[in-house]
Amino acid sequence: MSQDAGGETRSEGDLRNTGMSLRHDREWDYELDRIVDAVEERGAETVGLQFPEGLKRRGPAVADDLRELTEDVTFLLSGQPCYGACDLDTYLMRRTDVFVHFGHSPMKESDKIIYVPLFSNVDPFPMMEESLAELPDPEPESGDGERPAVGLVTTAQHMNLFPDMVDWLEERGFDVRTRRGDDRLTHEGQVLGCNYASADIDADHVLYVGGGKFHPLGLAMEHPEKKVTIADPVNNVVTVADTEQFMKQRYASVHKAMDAETWGVVFCTKIGQGRWETAQEIVAENENAYLITMDEVTPDRLRNFGFDAFVNTGCPRITTDDGPQFHKPMLTPGEYEIAVGNEPLESLEFDTFHGTW
Amino acid sequence: MSQDAGGETRSEGDLRNTGMSLRHDREWDYELDRIVDAVEERGAETVGLQFPEGLKRRGPAVADDLRELTEDVTFLLSGQPCYGACDLDTYLMRRTDVFVHFGHSPMKESDKIIYVPLFSNVDPFPMMEESLAELPDPEPESGDGERPAVGLVTTAQHMNLFPDMVDWLEERGFDVRTRRGDDRLTHEGQVLGCNYASADIDADHVLYVGGGKFHPLGLAMEHPEKKVTIADPVNNVVTVADTEQFMKQRYASVHKAMDAETWGVVFCTKIGQGRWETAQEIVAENENAYLITMDEVTPDRLRNFGFDAFVNTGCPRITTDDGPQFHKPMLTPGEYEIAVGNEPLESLEFDTFHGTW
Repeated sequence: MSQDAGGETRSEGDLRNTGMSLRHDREWDYELDRIVDAVEERGAETVGLQFPEGLKRRGPAVADDLRELTEDVTFLLSGQPCYGACDLDTYLMRRTDVFVHFGHSPMKESDKIIYVPLFSNVDPFPMMEESLAELPDPEPESGDGERPAVGLVTTAQHMNLFPDMVDWLEERGFDVRTRRGDDRLTHEGQVLGCNYASADIDADHVLYVGGGKFHPLGLAMEHPEKKVTIADPVNNVVTVADTEQFMKQRYASVHKAMDAETWGVVFCTKIGQGRWETAQEIVAENENAYLITMDEVTPDRLRNFGFDAFVNTGCPRITTDDGPQFHKPMLTPGEYEIAVGNEPLESLEFDTFHGTW
Repeated sequence: MSQDAGGETRSEGDLRNTGMSLRHDREWDYELDRIVDAVEERGAETVGLQFPEGLKRRGPAVADDLRELTEDVTFLLSGQPCYGACDLDTYLMRRTDVFVHFGHSPMKESDKIIYVPLFSNVDPFPMMEESLAELPDPEPESGDGERPAVGLVTTAQHMNLFPDMVDWLEERGFDVRTRRGDDRLTHEGQVLGCNYASADIDADHVLYVGGGKFHPLGLAMEHPEKKVTIADPVNNVVTVADTEQFMKQRYASVHKAMDAETWGVVFCTKIGQGRWETAQEIVAENENAYLITMDEVTPDRLRNFGFDAFVNTGCPRITTDDGPQFHKPMLTPGEYEIAVGNEPLESLEFDTFHGTW
C-alpha cells in the first residue's frame, strides 16, 4: 500500500480522499525505449507488465505500443492486486523473460526487474506557496535571524522535482532538512506508506508534497511530535495531518483484543511484506496463537478462521487503515504486545516496515 | 471450485444451496497418524496445513492435536482460498517440510503432498431409496426382462461408500454403469466441478449421490441428453438437475459479448487451473485480445481493466456460476469462439477441464 501512481486505496474514511483515483488525463512516461532495449538484448519471448491498481486500465494501451515496437513477443498483464514495490508479482516475474514494474521506485534492484517510476507532471509549487501559511515564519518581527527548520518529504511520483522543491523552500528562507531513509527507500526525501525514516530529521515541522492523505497520515502517526503539513498538488488543497480518528481506532482495537483467547498471526507471503521472525516469535511464546500464511490479507479470508483476534505482521497499512473492516480486532505486532500485557498502553506507536527482503 | 468438503461456494442462485456450508457437527478423520509419521520420517520442522473454505475453522484444533503429537514443529495454516485439489497453496508447499492438503482427493500424487480426503460419515441410502421414484422402473409390467442402465457418480467425500452404492443399486435390479474419468479424477465414479468424464457412460439416467447441486448441475450441463437425479444425503432431499437458468445466462453472456471490441483473456496461475495454450492461441489470433495473469479470478480484480469482455481459461465454474457478478460478459473459451463468429451458436456446451499439470 505504498506510493501508488494513481492507485486507489481500499480504506473507508479520510483515506478515500487520496486523490489517487482521479481520472483526469495525466500523461505518464512509460519509458518504452528502455523496455524495448531489454527485450532485444535478452531476445525475450515473453514480457510481464505489472501496474498499480489505478493504472491497470492503461495496461492494454502500453501493451499495444510495445507490440508495435517489437516482434513475436507475448505481453502478459498482471491481474494481481499491487500496492507497492513490496508487492511484485513473483509468479509473473519468474515466468517471463522481461518483467516491468510500473509506478513504484525500486525497493531492491534486480537484473530481472525493470522499474518504471512514472513521474507526475503536475506542478507542485502553487500548493507549496499556499502551504507557507502553515509553516513557521522565516522572518518573524522578533526574529533571531535563524532560519526555521522544515523537513521535506514526497513520494516516488514527485521525486524528479525534489531538488527544485528544496531550492524553492531555501530561497524563501527555510533551513530545509532532508535525509534518505533506510534500504527500503530509494531516494532522499522519499516516504512509503510503511516507512517514514526519511522524516527522522531535527525539525518540528515537516512539509509533505504529494497527492492524498495516505502518506502524511502515516507520517504523522509515526512522528506524533511533528506538525505535518500537506501540500497536495493533485487535489489542489493544503491541510494539516490529523491522526486523532486513527489513534482512537487503534486504542479501541487494542482494548477489544485484550479479551481474546485465541490469536491468528498473519504472515504475509508478498515478497516485500514478510516478517517471519516477528510472526514466529509470537507463536513460540503464546500457545493460543496460530500462524496463517496468505498474500492478500482481507476480511473475507480471515472470516473463515474462528480466532478471537488477529496480528498482522505484513503491511502495516492493512491494519491501521482497513482494520475496522475485519470482523475481529486486527493489531500490529507492537499493539499485540500491549494487548497481551507484555508492554504498557503508553508504548503504542505506528507500525513501520524496514529493510527489503 | 471442485469437491469441497464443507466448502461454501460464492455463487448466487441455486448453487448457494449446496448444503456445503452446513454447520452440524460432522466428524472427520484427519488421519493425524499419517501426518505424524511423515513429520518423523522427514525430521520436519515446518508443516503446512491447507483446508477448503468450509473447514478452515477446524484448522486450529487440528494444529493443536498435531502439536501434542509432535515436538518442535511449527504448523502453518494456509490462509489462501481453496476450492479443490487444483488449488494447492504452492507457496506454503515449497516452504514447508511436510504439506497436508485436506478435503480433496489427489489430482496428482507427489512426495511433497499428503492428501487427506475427509470421508463423510453421512448415510446415503435413505435418499437413494427415495431417488428410486426418479429412476426407470427395474420391473415394468410390459418389461423385456432387461435391467435398466443407470450411471452412478459421487464426490470425493463419499468415495469410501461407492462400492456399496453400486451393490445397493444392482440388488434393486439396475445395470449400474460406472467408469473412471481421465487423469484429473482419482476414483471410479468420481466427479469434479470441472470434469464429468466419469459420466461418459452408455445410460440415459445418471444418479448423483452427494451434497448440494454444484456438481450435478455441472454434470447436467456437460451431458444435456441425460436425466440427472440428485440423491442428497446432506440436505436430505431428492431432486432432478435443472440447468435452464444457467443455460439462459450463458446464451445471454455470449450475445452481450458479440459487441465486444477488446478482450481480456484470463490465464489462471493456480497449479491445476492453467490452460496456457488455449489462452495463448486466442491472443495470437485476435489483436484486440490481451493476456491477464492472476490466481483468484474475481470481479474486483477485473474491474480495473477497461476491457469490453473477458475469456476465462481457468476454472470453468467461475464463468458459469459467478459469471453474472462480473461487470462485463465473462465467457468460456468455447463461448468466446461463438461470440467472435468462429463457431455457430449451436456449438455452445459446458466447459470442462482435463488432465492435471
